[in-house]
Amino acid sequence: MNSTHVPTSRIEAFSDGVIAIITTIMVFDLKLAESTPSELIAGELLKLLPKFLSYTFSFLTVATMWVNHHQLFHQIKQTDRRLLWYNIHLLFWMSAVPFGTHFIGTHPFDWQASFLYGAIFLMNAFSFMLMRGYVVNQNLLHETISKEAHMRIRNKNKLAMGLYGAAALLSLISVYISFAILFLVPAMYFIPEKITHITTVEE
Amino acid sequence: MNSTHVPTSRIEAFSDGVIAIITTIMVFDLKLAESTPSELIAGELLKLLPKFLSYTFSFLTVATMWVNHHQLFHQIKQTDRRLLWYNIHLLFWMSAVPFGTHFIGTHPFDWQASFLYGAIFLMNAFSFMLMRGYVVNQNLLHETISKEAHMRIRNKNKLAMGLYGAAALLSLISVYISFAILFLVPAMYFIPEKITHITTVEE
Amino acid sequence: MNSTHVPTSRIEAFSDGVIAIITTIMVFDLKLAESTPSELIAGELLKLLPKFLSYTFSFLTVATMWVNHHQLFHQIKQTDRRLLWYNIHLLFWMSAVPFGTHFIGTHPFDWQASFLYGAIFLMNAFSFMLMRGYVVNQNLLHETISKEAHMRIRNKNKLAMGLYGAAALLSLISVYISFAILFLVPAMYFIPEKITHITTVEE
Amino acid sequence: MNSTHVPTSRIEAFSDGVIAIITTIMVFDLKLAESTPSELIAGELLKLLPKFLSYTFSFLTVATMWVNHHQLFHQIKQTDRRLLWYNIHLLFWMSAVPFGTHFIGTHPFDWQASFLYGAIFLMNAFSFMLMRGYVVNQNLLHETISKEAHMRIRNKNKLAMGLYGAAALLSLISVYISFAILFLVPAMYFIPEKITHITTVEE
Repeated sequence: MNSTHVPTSRIEAFSDGVIAIITTIMVFDLKLAESTPSELIAGELLKLLPKFLSYTFSFLTVATMWVNHHQLFHQIKQTDRRLLWYNIHLLFWMSAVPFGTHFIGTHPFDWQASFLYGAIFLMNAFSFMLMRGYVVNQNLLHETISKEAHMRIRNKNKLAMGLYGAAALLSLISVYISFAILFLVPAMYFIPEKITHITTVEE
Repeated sequence: MNSTHVPTSRIEAFSDGVIAIITTIMVFDLKLAESTPSELIAGELLKLLPKFLSYTFSFLTVATMWVNHHQLFHQIKQTDRRLLWYNIHLLFWMSAVPFGTHFIGTHPFDWQASFLYGAIFLMNAFSFMLMRGYVVNQNLLHETISKEAHMRIRNKNKLAMGLYGAAALLSLISVYISFAILFLVPAMYFIPEKITHITTVEE
Repeated sequence: MNSTHVPTSRIEAFSDGVIAIITTIMVFDLKLAESTPSELIAGELLKLLPKFLSYTFSFLTVATMWVNHHQLFHQIKQTDRRLLWYNIHLLFWMSAVPFGTHFIGTHPFDWQASFLYGAIFLMNAFSFMLMRGYVVNQNLLHETISKEAHMRIRNKNKLAMGLYGAAALLSLISVYISFAILFLVPAMYFIPEKITHITTVEE
Repeated sequence: MNSTHVPTSRIEAFSDGVIAIITTIMVFDLKLAESTPSELIAGELLKLLPKFLSYTFSFLTVATMWVNHHQLFHQIKQTDRRLLWYNIHLLFWMSAVPFGTHFIGTHPFDWQASFLYGAIFLMNAFSFMLMRGYVVNQNLLHETISKEAHMRIRNKNKLAMGLYGAAALLSLISVYISFAILFLVPAMYFIPEKITHITTVEE
């Protein structure tokens, strides 16, 4: 075993743990007060709607990031010390998502909430871009993966950053415009990029 | 390594994390108020009973889903991108279970609670069915697994969906009928289906 | 791959997740009220002492169970469906530990708290015993492990059950006797039994 | 399989779970009160700043410990029973970090908070030192790892202990001095030590 060939398994396990907690634990803000009398329940459930929607959106977006993370690390043949830190940087901004989710869930029509929410996702997309850039530059990827595929993913990542930035800024004008833009990113990422291997290796 | 042979290990690790959090964290709603004086403790513990029962039931049902998930993925020889999303869809509905558990634990005799509780499990069974259908149709399973076994599991899954749907709807008439039906599903799933391999492969 | 040779990896991963959450999340009950003025902090910290002690004790005991779980599963060569359920049964009682910990931390000198706390650990020891019994009877262990070692572990397990039962019952007389007995079990388990392999296999 | 060659995988998985929960769950103290009216949000966000900073600092420090843990276990060729307990001892003190983080986040300028915060990290560094000492003394490391590298890491660890101890004690004089010293440790650890293998083995 050589230090230059640290496998990705543990970095994946730690990331999976962190992402699993982030996605799951947000649901604990979704609670009806214990003392709600029966006739007020329907109304109280309705008031939970913004929280439920922000939870759903955050779950979807964090899950998309997990899929991309899974896909990226599947392509990485080895890790090094710096990559650990790029990944921790990403996890830090991912762990800020529940804060933004709670904020926008409790103050759905406040521009400050959608501004912060957009900004948190902007930092997530930015961290992802930094990490991917490092991985490509340091040749940590399997050689069979085409450069073109990376270019495509990179452009998508830049677009996501632009959209999140726009969502943050435009919430100064209207939170509805901000919401509309926020939904574009998971839609765009819903089908992640194909990993294109140069097929001569396998054949 | 080829992109068409993504191993199931990380999808299992992430799902294990999410399911472990869901099952465990529900217990944190089970708390006695700090200021309860000694002579009122027995009474307060009794008031926790509906919460304890809903926790136990949810734990049992989510654990059953984990067993089925474990069994299904043990049979899968490779994953693809779409399977990740089918699994995330399932995890989303699983993560709604603590919300339903808290609701029915605090309002045990309210039809709205048992309606929602049943509906959440209906969506879980539905997501499982969607995922299993995809896996079978795309030939992602080990070839040694008999089609008959799948048919049996599928029928069981449909029955579970029907029972959860009935539990949800019948709570409009009586929550007690709803409770009785809810208990049928874990009972039915308690012993999961045998994985029948065509034995000629091993011999 | 054969259904009769399901590896233990995923059952271990799921158990690790559940146990990790149980041990860690109890610390979140350890909180100073935000509004505590500076001159009252020392007194408030002192009031947290019972909570801190119950947390420490529960952490230690659950960690001991993790060590024993780790050791048992290291010896298991394959799992089957029933073992999944024996393990889930154990995890259910482990997940009751935070409830007991909070109860005894907030009501340290109430016999009802130490009664329940002891009873929860009794159920844990009992679940462990059931699982170990099943594993030994079904020959799921590596053949190289001596039967004598199992007998010794089994006797220890019975002793733990007796002590937890005594701790629960004697809290009716005095919680201090109960506390003293509770501490005997982790002390006894602190050094887990050696796994004795019949050495002819390796040599 | 021999009991003297227990692989490190499960001890890593359990530690990853615990560390993932510790790092992530602290963010749940970062919440704006639901009832905050729009015009007070900016002020309330500002009041969250100490909490955000203590969260960020704790996240960074715990992540640093994870990196060091990852690096240490990557070098370990086998575990034994005692190592499990050294690791549990470390995890216990790591799990105390959220308590200290909440305390210093709610009482940022109180010397008692920075005293306790520093003391908790001191115990973390001490546990790490104990574990590393055990691993080196028992020859649990891969033989290819140079003793010099260990000496360097050990000295760094001692320095970290000294700094944390100083941060704790100097908070009696000024919390600002304490803060300044606390920041030195992650800075020092940011780039973890290279694992130096004796290269003749690989060549």
